[in-house]
Amino acid sequence: MATHYIERRHHHFGWDNSLSPVLTVQPGDIVEFETIDASGGQLTPNSTAADVATLDFGKVNPATGPILVEGAEPGDALVVHVHDMKPSGWGWTANIPGFGLLAHRFTQPALVHWHYDTTLTTPAPFKAGASVPLKPFIGVIGQALAESGLHSVVPPRRVGGNMDTADICVGSTVTFPVEVEGALFSLGDTHAAQGDGEVCGTAIESAMNVVVELQLIKNRTLKFPIIDNPSPRGRHIDGKGYLVTTGIGPDLMQNAIEALDQMVDLISDRLKIEPVDAYMLCSACADLKITEIVDQPNWIVGCHFPKAVLP
Amino acid sequence: MATHYIERRHHHFGWDNSLSPVLTVQPGDIVEFETIDASGGQLTPNSTAADVATLDFGKVNPATGPILVEGAEPGDALVVHVHDMKPSGWGWTANIPGFGLLAHRFTQPALVHWHYDTTLTTPAPFKAGASVPLKPFIGVIGQALAESGLHSVVPPRRVGGNMDTADICVGSTVTFPVEVEGALFSLGDTHAAQGDGEVCGTAIESAMNVVVELQLIKNRTLKFPIIDNPSPRGRHIDGKGYLVTTGIGPDLMQNAIEALDQMVDLISDRLKIEPVDAYMLCSACADLKITEIVDQPNWIVGCHFPKAVLP
Repeated sequence: MATHYIERRHHHFGWDNSLSPVLTVQPGDIVEFETIDASGGQLTPNSTAADVATLDFGKVNPATGPILVEGAEPGDALVVHVHDMKPSGWGWTANIPGFGLLAHRFTQPALVHWHYDTTLTTPAPFKAGASVPLKPFIGVIGQALAESGLHSVVPPRRVGGNMDTADICVGSTVTFPVEVEGALFSLGDTHAAQGDGEVCGTAIESAMNVVVELQLIKNRTLKFPIIDNPSPRGRHIDGKGYLVTTGIGPDLMQNAIEALDQMVDLISDRLKIEPVDAYMLCSACADLKITEIVDQPNWIVGCHFPKAVLP
Repeated sequence: MATHYIERRHHHFGWDNSLSPVLTVQPGDIVEFETIDASGGQLTPNSTAADVATLDFGKVNPATGPILVEGAEPGDALVVHVHDMKPSGWGWTANIPGFGLLAHRFTQPALVHWHYDTTLTTPAPFKAGASVPLKPFIGVIGQALAESGLHSVVPPRRVGGNMDTADICVGSTVTFPVEVEGALFSLGDTHAAQGDGEVCGTAIESAMNVVVELQLIKNRTLKFPIIDNPSPRGRHIDGKGYLVTTGIGPDLMQNAIEALDQMVDLISDRLKIEPVDAYMLCSACADLKITEIVDQPNWIVGCHFPKAVLP
């Protein structure tokens, strides 16, 4: 078993199975990745909303890699154990026009900076006395696709990618289907915290080093990634209970929009902050859950906001 | 403030604003409801899967009520504090052909009985050593619609109804928009436990008495119900972490089906039980969450299964 270190200069934009690996590892090896934040370094602690408006989208979500895993072939499963994440202490959340679940409502750029305790023992302060307990995770984690050419980094796919799934945190194990020889694994887009959904389109975006162990299961067919998490998801944030707004109707997407729209109003009203700030706060901490999906023709999506975040 | 008791014989099937109230209360009053299980008493501890096949759907989900709340008018909000639930110790979960998220896969009737500790201190035993920690909640809770006529009890609506939302439990407060004079509030369909989604179409269906306090907020316009829960949602069940299967693609409903389909296979394989039993177990304890809803064009739904349920 070897330990490797990949500097952040070894990164790529989008997925392409013709990219040369920056490192070759054996199953069982441990790799520490430096990452770049989701803006690709375009946003800094001095940035303003005006800088969000001029972001170059060709440089978003750089992924550090790719790594070739010896022996990995299509039809195998790549197993990634997340050993450690090393927070940097600064992060940002933005409303990017045209992006996010309420893009129709929030059409102007907005930016919030987070300066947080890297030991994660105190919640990260927001506005109006609100603060968000942190739980870092990996936003982009995945592999090259079987299909040739360059594929946008934005959508996640069966081989992973921009999953933005907060369950992929320290301690968790993610198993992916492999589609190409050597897997060509990469990761990036680390987040200090996020609710289920990443509703405004960005989380608490924060570059961190990530340490993972890579394993291989031969001839294990998976349809989509599977996560095994040995710890509870929410105990860092659930101690004071939660508020739920609901969207009820025949379309899950519309229900999610309705639930979030009301939670933004509720939080904006309670904290006396701008709705766009409430929207970004929801992205950092509120979870979208499908609370009922069988009572035809109306399903329910709930937007769950943890009360520990409130002053 | 008065305290009232409504026997289960005062129930109705479906919502109709011409029904005569069985009780009139003042805001601030407390009401204890007897309820009937979701089968309307058609299933008993002696029932088999054959009895599921012959269920009379005209008798499902009886709701105890309706109650007239003095002074309630359209444009007001009805506030329901859930003070207590008194479990009966027996419940059932069924696969009802044609109903449930995987109705295309599970076409035969199936029935599981649960005999559980009414103090809720020990998990309810299932098959193969699995057991489900319980947290009772109210499945049907709502009011008459403004629209005249008889409306099916199956779908929830903006005034509530068959919400099957596990956040509506002891300690929680639900606020509903009122559409008719007097609100005409009812409840029933109590569950001993359920995951978010109620994926097989039934939870741990179990009749219980329910004690609520009813309050009124005049001139408070709500679009959909809102829940305030002072306690964490999952600490009774989250201590050993959880497994997540994912469905990734452009349609949230299809993603939910994919995620659940894989979890059924995973649990069936791990516990060496029939897939239909794994399906019913997921309905009792696994949560559907929208873990990513902004990375166009692919969203992710996760099926989260608590490992505390496994032997």
